[in-house]
Amino acid sequence: MAQDSIEIVTAARKGDRRALARLISIVEEHRPAASAVLAELFPSTGKANVVGLTGAPGSGKSTLSDVIISRMRSRGDHVAVIAVDPSSPFTGGAILGDRIRMQDHITDPGVYIRSMGSRGHLGGMSAAAPKVVTVLDGIGFPQILIETVGVGQAEVEVVGEADTTVVVVNPGWGDAVQANKAGLLEIADVFVVNKADRPGVRETVRDLNQMLDLGSAREWRPPIIETVATKAEGSGDLMSALDNHRAHLVDDGHLETKRSQRLEATLKSALALAAVERMANAQESDGYQQTLSKVTERRLDPWSAAQSLVEGLNG
Amino acid sequence: MAQDSIEIVTAARKGDRRALARLISIVEEHRPAASAVLAELFPSTGKANVVGLTGAPGSGKSTLSDVIISRMRSRGDHVAVIAVDPSSPFTGGAILGDRIRMQDHITDPGVYIRSMGSRGHLGGMSAAAPKVVTVLDGIGFPQILIETVGVGQAEVEVVGEADTTVVVVNPGWGDAVQANKAGLLEIADVFVVNKADRPGVRETVRDLNQMLDLGSAREWRPPIIETVATKAEGSGDLMSALDNHRAHLVDDGHLETKRSQRLEATLKSALALAAVERMANAQESDGYQQTLSKVTERRLDPWSAAQSLVEGLNG
Repeated sequence: MAQDSIEIVTAARKGDRRALARLISIVEEHRPAASAVLAELFPSTGKANVVGLTGAPGSGKSTLSDVIISRMRSRGDHVAVIAVDPSSPFTGGAILGDRIRMQDHITDPGVYIRSMGSRGHLGGMSAAAPKVVTVLDGIGFPQILIETVGVGQAEVEVVGEADTTVVVVNPGWGDAVQANKAGLLEIADVFVVNKADRPGVRETVRDLNQMLDLGSAREWRPPIIETVATKAEGSGDLMSALDNHRAHLVDDGHLETKRSQRLEATLKSALALAAVERMANAQESDGYQQTLSKVTERRLDPWSAAQSLVEGLNG
Repeated sequence: MAQDSIEIVTAARKGDRRALARLISIVEEHRPAASAVLAELFPSTGKANVVGLTGAPGSGKSTLSDVIISRMRSRGDHVAVIAVDPSSPFTGGAILGDRIRMQDHITDPGVYIRSMGSRGHLGGMSAAAPKVVTVLDGIGFPQILIETVGVGQAEVEVVGEADTTVVVVNPGWGDAVQANKAGLLEIADVFVVNKADRPGVRETVRDLNQMLDLGSAREWRPPIIETVATKAEGSGDLMSALDNHRAHLVDDGHLETKRSQRLEATLKSALALAAVERMANAQESDGYQQTLSKVTERRLDPWSAAQSLVEGLNG
């Protein structure tokens, strides 16, 4: 079994995309081979540049992704795209309807697109995302782009895997405020005001600047880039902003710090999941069944019951 | 400490609303007194009728809640309302701007409104919700209404605490399809097509019926009620539908089954949280620090590391 999975890793590293798809499914779905795959790939990770792209639906993220992919490809880099849609039950090969433009890249062997839906992820998408990034990074993609459909909690957590996070807003009253409310101000390394050929750009830029002024002082102040993604306008500025942020991270050792923190967070959530699994085994026991009866008969509240079951494991 | 919290419980049972607010904050924020409060109240629970109300923003849930509250009040029942807004950082006393209509009920001592934001909930809102319901039920509210602002995963989980779930849609192409996509078809006990004075009602009702026909056969087929909540039209039909579903649950023993399942789910998630807390203590140890170093140096992947740490606890 372990030997098999190493063979799939080898094939994926040579560019076999079906092997790569299998690897991702293995780690996403927590299949038996997942441990061997992750153990094999993890030591090769830490080389990819991971960019996250988030913002409200309709803000033009897909078109902007398309522009970024084209620019990365013109530099000769292979690009892996993780398209995150928690509302979608589909995982794996499914390409979302509003990602039609990405079809341009589907025939390009230098681009790999994978969508992540809500199903089949033990511990949720935020637990699966670091594993998928580990596979793509470990396989050797120099560029990984994580694009979200919406701006919910799940999306924000998944984008947390990125080294550089791009937050997309549109011109118009309130869009910057909405982004702030959704907690996007805190995670943004680069702001993009997309559809900048529409009225209200100046006000949106002003709002973003004001909110940044009011926020806590940071070493890196997120630049605000105006783009018209449908015409690729501003794409040079955006790429420069991404490069600048990357340089900032690398030069001052921030990248190492950020990645160490992320690995510790991954370890902690993996620990929590492993603990839950252990608890699930405990649920087979007689003690658990007796405790459960007390709870359903409302003689013992579930929280005290949980505490006593966990303490019972100490003995 | 425990004695203090029992006194607060006693005051809350006598109708002291500030005492009730304190109890909810205690359990929501997992304060030291939470265990005593929950242990005291839990044996008195299981009497309230818990109704959940969910649907897309703008579908008129607040107005509909208002109508339901008025009808419940006219029967003489006290009503507790939990207004769920995961995007709001506010918890506790904060009343949302779009709930202005509920202001009618704020001066009514028979109505208690509490909003749940995203902050201060150990283990998330889905962990806090059963505790808040336990307090309101244990204090003696015969009717509890859980209203959500959106239709995200958090909202669906919170509404899972309800005995009867009402899903609100609006007339017009695609609304029923959206509700289905969001997983609302599976959780609906009653459908409301609100704003039924607008065009497209027939199509929406037809779409819902088709989707119900295609779904798995169930003992209870959710009725589809047309309402114009702003004019209280259809409110009689809605109340009858709620009563019928309640009677269906009670008569056939479904209510007991449903509640036992819910209590088991609560116990399991409490177990998981308790296990995570225990892991957090393990993180203080030398073994954890050594393992963490191996992970940040990419010599050991976080998932294998978590497994070995958990197994280490067995010894």
